[in-house]
This record gives sequence, C-alpha cells and structure tokens, in this order.
Amino acid sequence: MASFHLCNSIANVNQTKTNLSLMLASSTSSTTTPIIKLNSNLGNQSISSKQNHIANHIDKSMEPSISSSTSIVPEFPLKIGIIGLGEFGQFLAKAFKRQGHNVLGTSRSDYSEYCQEHGIEFYRHVNGLCEAQPDVILICSSILSTEDVVRKIPFHKLKPNTILADVLSVKEYARNLLLDVVPEGFGILCTHPMFGKFSGKNSWEGLRFVYDKVRISENRIQERKCEQFLSIFQDEGCQMVEMTCEEHDRYAAESQFITHMVARILSNMNLESTPINTKNYETLMELTHTTVSHSSDLFDGLFLYNLNAMEQIEKLDRAFETVKQNLFGKLRSTLRTQIEEKVTIDTSADRPSTYFLPNSNNVTDLSSFSLVPKQGKQDASVELKTEVQHASV
Amino acid sequence: MASFHLCNSIANVNQTKTNLSLMLASSTSSTTTPIIKLNSNLGNQSISSKQNHIANHIDKSMEPSISSSTSIVPEFPLKIGIIGLGEFGQFLAKAFKRQGHNVLGTSRSDYSEYCQEHGIEFYRHVNGLCEAQPDVILICSSILSTEDVVRKIPFHKLKPNTILADVLSVKEYARNLLLDVVPEGFGILCTHPMFGKFSGKNSWEGLRFVYDKVRISENRIQERKCEQFLSIFQDEGCQMVEMTCEEHDRYAAESQFITHMVARILSNMNLESTPINTKNYETLMELTHTTVSHSSDLFDGLFLYNLNAMEQIEKLDRAFETVKQNLFGKLRSTLRTQIEEKVTIDTSADRPSTYFLPNSNNVTDLSSFSLVPKQGKQDASVELKTEVQHASV
Repeated sequence: MASFHLCNSIANVNQTKTNLSLMLASSTSSTTTPIIKLNSNLGNQSISSKQNHIANHIDKSMEPSISSSTSIVPEFPLKIGIIGLGEFGQFLAKAFKRQGHNVLGTSRSDYSEYCQEHGIEFYRHVNGLCEAQPDVILICSSILSTEDVVRKIPFHKLKPNTILADVLSVKEYARNLLLDVVPEGFGILCTHPMFGKFSGKNSWEGLRFVYDKVRISENRIQERKCEQFLSIFQDEGCQMVEMTCEEHDRYAAESQFITHMVARILSNMNLESTPINTKNYETLMELTHTTVSHSSDLFDGLFLYNLNAMEQIEKLDRAFETVKQNLFGKLRSTLRTQIEEKVTIDTSADRPSTYFLPNSNNVTDLSSFSLVPKQGKQDASVELKTEVQHASV
Repeated sequence: MASFHLCNSIANVNQTKTNLSLMLASSTSSTTTPIIKLNSNLGNQSISSKQNHIANHIDKSMEPSISSSTSIVPEFPLKIGIIGLGEFGQFLAKAFKRQGHNVLGTSRSDYSEYCQEHGIEFYRHVNGLCEAQPDVILICSSILSTEDVVRKIPFHKLKPNTILADVLSVKEYARNLLLDVVPEGFGILCTHPMFGKFSGKNSWEGLRFVYDKVRISENRIQERKCEQFLSIFQDEGCQMVEMTCEEHDRYAAESQFITHMVARILSNMNLESTPINTKNYETLMELTHTTVSHSSDLFDGLFLYNLNAMEQIEKLDRAFETVKQNLFGKLRSTLRTQIEEKVTIDTSADRPSTYFLPNSNNVTDLSSFSLVPKQGKQDASVELKTEVQHASV
C-alpha cells in the first residue's frame, strides 16, 4: 500500500506530461577467450559463460589461507588506480598489493599516511592519478557519489586502452553511467565482489565475484588487461560469475537487498540479547549487526539505484501481511470455539476447554493471554451464553 | 494497523459485556538448595538463581562430544514417563537413556516398534503409563494439544510426590494449566529446552535450558527427583537458566518468536538461491529453512499462547513501516532534486545530473530505473521546465 502512496506523492510533485524518448543503452559485452597466456591460472580454468551459472556451492570447510606478508610479483604487473580509498577500496588494494600489482589511489579525504604505510601511491587529485596513466581505473566510491566521481575523470590524460572498472552493488546504473560518460576506445568492466571485510576477512575462497565485460575491445592490449585484472580475483579463490548487469540486479534485489532490508528492519526494532537466546536468534542478531555496519548510503543506493528493489519490498509487504492474517485468523477461530463451547456445552470442572486463552471481555487489548479464570467461571459462562444467544437472534 | 482490524472483527463476533473476575495464578516457585548429594555434578555447580541471569555466552569452539553408545548408570536412576513421542520427545528420550534412566512413553500414535528399538517401555494408553508409576511425567505434546493431554492424566494412579514437567515453548500458559489441573501434592516443574534436533544435534554444550520450579514441595523425595531431573540437562552441558514463566515469555517473544516470525515471512516469499548469494543471504535462507521445518502448530502456539507475541508483531510492523518510509522519502527527495535541476540549470552534456534515476513520465510504474535518456534530452528538459513553472503559478 505504501508504495502506492509514494506514487501518488510523486504524481503531486510532478504534474507534467513530458515525452522523453528513452532507450536502454545497449551492452556491447564481449565474451572472447583470452589469447595471451597470463602469469596466472586463468588460462587453465576458463571463466564460466553467461549461459552456465556456477553451481551455488561454498565449501563450508574453508580455512583462512591468506598470508598478508606473501607477495607474488607477476610477470607484467598491472598499474591499478583506485578512486575512493574508503573501507572497501582499502580492502581491495591489499589483495592487489599482495599479488604484486602497482596500486595508485586518490580520494576526497587525505589518505597519504595510510597509503605510505601500505605501499600505495597517493594522489591528492584525480588529475595526478590519471597523469600516472594506470592500466585500470577502479571506481570504489559510494553508489550515491559515483556519477560525480566518473564525470570528473580527465579522460584525455589517460593512455588508450585504459579500462574503467567499478565495484558498485548496483550494476545497470553503473553500466549506463559508464557507457554514457566514458569516451569510445576505453574499456568498461562492471564488477561486483559479493563480499566485504566481514565475509572476506580471512579468505576470498568460494566467495562470488560477478562481472560483465560491458565494453572490452578485441585488441590484445585491452583484452589482456581485462583478463589479468579478473585473474586477481580468480587467484584469490573467488567463484567467478559472468552475467549481464540486468541479471545481476534482478538476483541482487532478491538476495542482497532483501538481506539488507530485513537487517535494517530488525535493527530498527533494537533487538537485544536475552538470557534465553536460541542459536537462530543469535544468528539473526549477528547478521543484523554485520549488515547494518555498512553505511546507510549503501542501503539507500541498493534501493534507489536498483530497478527491482521496489518489487521486493512489495513482496516482503505481502508476505508479512499473509503471515499476520494467518495468525489473526487462527486467533479469531480459537476465540469463536471458546464462545461456542461455552454456549453449547454445560460447564464442568474437568472437561477440556480453552479457558487459558484470553477471555472475551479482555480481548480488545489482548492483554489477558494466559490468565486463569479462578473465580466466577460458572457464572461468567452462563452470562456469556445468554449474551451470545441474544446476539445471534 | 492489521491488529486493530483484528480487534474490530473480534468485537463484531462477540458483542457481549461479561464481567469475569480474573486472577493470575500465583507461582509457588521454590528455590531451595539441593540437600541430597546426587550422583552428578549438580551438587558442585549450583544452579544460577533467578536474580543472576547467566551471562549470554556460547563457546563458539564447541565440538561434538556426545557418543550415543556411552551409557552411565546413575546410583538412583529416575523412571521418566514421556507423554508425546514425537520428534522432540524422542530427542529428549535419547539423552535420558544415555544417562542411564528408565524411560517409559505413550503417544497418540503407535510407537511400539520405535520404543522397542530404543529401550523405551511403550504404553498404548496413558493409564498404563501411570500405573507403572514414573517419578517424573514429562509432557512433550504440542502447545495446542497439551491441555487435552494434561486433563486426561489419571492422577489417582500415580504415586505421591510424582513431578509433572513440561517442555512447552510458552511457559505462563503451561504453568497456569498445570496449577489448575494437577492435584495438590504432585510437583510441577515448567521447563523449556531452548534447542532442538538441529541446534542440539551434536551436543547440548552451552545450549540454554530454562526452568521454573513452579510447585516443588520441600519434602526430600520431591526435591531430590527435581534436582536429579534437572541434572540430566546440566550434565549434558546445558546453560541452566532459572527464571519465572512470565520472564521467560517476555524474553521468548523478543527472541524466539521474532525469529520464527521473520522465518515464516521469508518462507512465504519463497526465497530462492541465486548464482550470486552473499554469505549473509545464505545464512538467512538456512535460518528460514531450519525454523520453518518446525510444525506450523509450534509457530501458531508461540503466537496464540504467549501474551507478549502480539506486541512484538506490532513492533515489527512499525519498524518495517519506518524503514519503508525512510527509503520512500529518499526517493522523493532525489526526484525533487532531479526536477529542480532541470528547472534551474541550463542543460549541458557534461554537467553532473541525476538522469540515471527514473524519468518523470515513467515514475508511476517505477520501471524506468537505470534508463539512460539518449535522445531528446534537451527538448524534454525544456518541456519539463515550462510545465513545472506553469504548475507552480
């Protein structure tokens, strides 16, 4: 219902009849096989095709396997420029460094100290970062600020074949934005690592990495850079899932957004630990805690920038209503039985009854559950009997 | 809102003005220290008092420790008569047998074969079970059928000092029912093992066992039986939590009922595995699966027979509404910004904009998210500008 109110409100704000001619930007995704043998295992393990989704299986017995001190120097290290050195940008930068790539970074805030400690070249402005001519520019800004970030990139400073990649949790929006802004010739790779600092703390083994080669030209340099960038995640043990941005957004709304929605609702209820927590309740509290520890900007972005999120809210709304009505129906029929019993059967101390349910005069505030009518049971039944018979006439 | 509709419906069904005199049955709980030294570790580890709730801590590193073949014969084994040999009754019977107690059982269905295999004396009727004079009668029926079960017990066949115990997930109801039906002299022990066949599959270590000695007389025989029965759970490693039935029901509604409610809602949504599940989404699916694998009778019982459940539904309802309104508010203000930008700023190809949000003419069906307006951008903006200015006059 609330969504209809929303539509009405929007209609009030905007009483216009515009006739914009819209079109969905066409995805120029290419799925060619890598030609150049990379210094990684990507050449041996072909990445799943869009048609064959990877089986949904995570090895439950996975153990921490990352040693942060281990650093492998690849034959041709990539120069990766990260825009946005927040938690997630830093989290990814560590893996890039661990695999021996060169990492540059820029951010709204000053991360020069952090970068110095972690072997990252820090640039105060995106201009400097682009002048250093990275192979891949990885946009790690929040969903809400990404358009602004992308529009400020000085593309003329980049070398040809540079790949623009993003890690947003919404992919149709990212694809359309990049297709609109990034000049022809540059590559576009949309990705979504389906994990973060909690789930990927010890290992990325078995964690899903979704990607869509939105616009990777068939020249060898861009192709090689793209495959090499993807191999970073493959080498960390990620389950590589290639799918279109549309598919991603549909699945993500059904899974990731619903998880965030449930966590935000439970967080709003201020769930507290009790002395009698069940294991499942503790799981629910933990899930709520880790999910809402992400910024509320992420949650807003998952809703505002994913076409399918509203449908999922409506589905959740209907499911909640169904479960409630089912329970309330049971309550009504139990009370009806209680009343009918009192009308048709003579009261007797030892016959089965439903006296332990709320009594009729206390029903409206539902505060009489579990009360035992110790006194006046007989009288009340007789009185109720009379009243109900009267009402049915 | 729905709860108010419910109240109205009930008011329609029952237009009576009864004046039942109700009273909450007083709990005659005793918290005496065990006098007799038991053949268990209960004598050494005193059970926590009602005032000191056990710290909420489960050892995460717990390992399976139960060997089903190990059987310890206690010095004075108890004779435990289980009424209701469903999944949970069987689950508990195994532990009683493992600890060397004598287990008798009766049930609506014929479990004679199962009982023969598991060393349980099966009785076709409750009369036979009572004639065998167990020390403890443990009621393991569903919430909905328990009143009927309790009223059919032939108490005159039992020996004095027999303890009537239950394991229902709602405790005020159980306490009031037992206090009403069980004759003076017999003991009443209300318990709730906060675990089941999933969470307690490998071990009960650290799992919570809630109990309330509702009516245990101070004579040594009844006291000893009670402590010995509790020691079974203590010896299995349970966290023993003594609290009143009222306290239990308040905490259980906040934790166990909310968990079941969320699981029932998500189950109603038919959550499905996607190729891009996050770890938290998989946790949510698993939690839903294990929770709804309990009978719907249990869920109905948790709602119908716990005074505090309705309040929790209302709280969940308000939280859902708050989260939705928060998101919808953000959507409205984003759209307002989009409209204002178009009105006040001249359109230009490279300025930051919010074109990637749904466009005004497609807003009502919310299906235009992430569409890139490739054509007619300039014209449409001009048209929109005119219309909005017109509307504001």
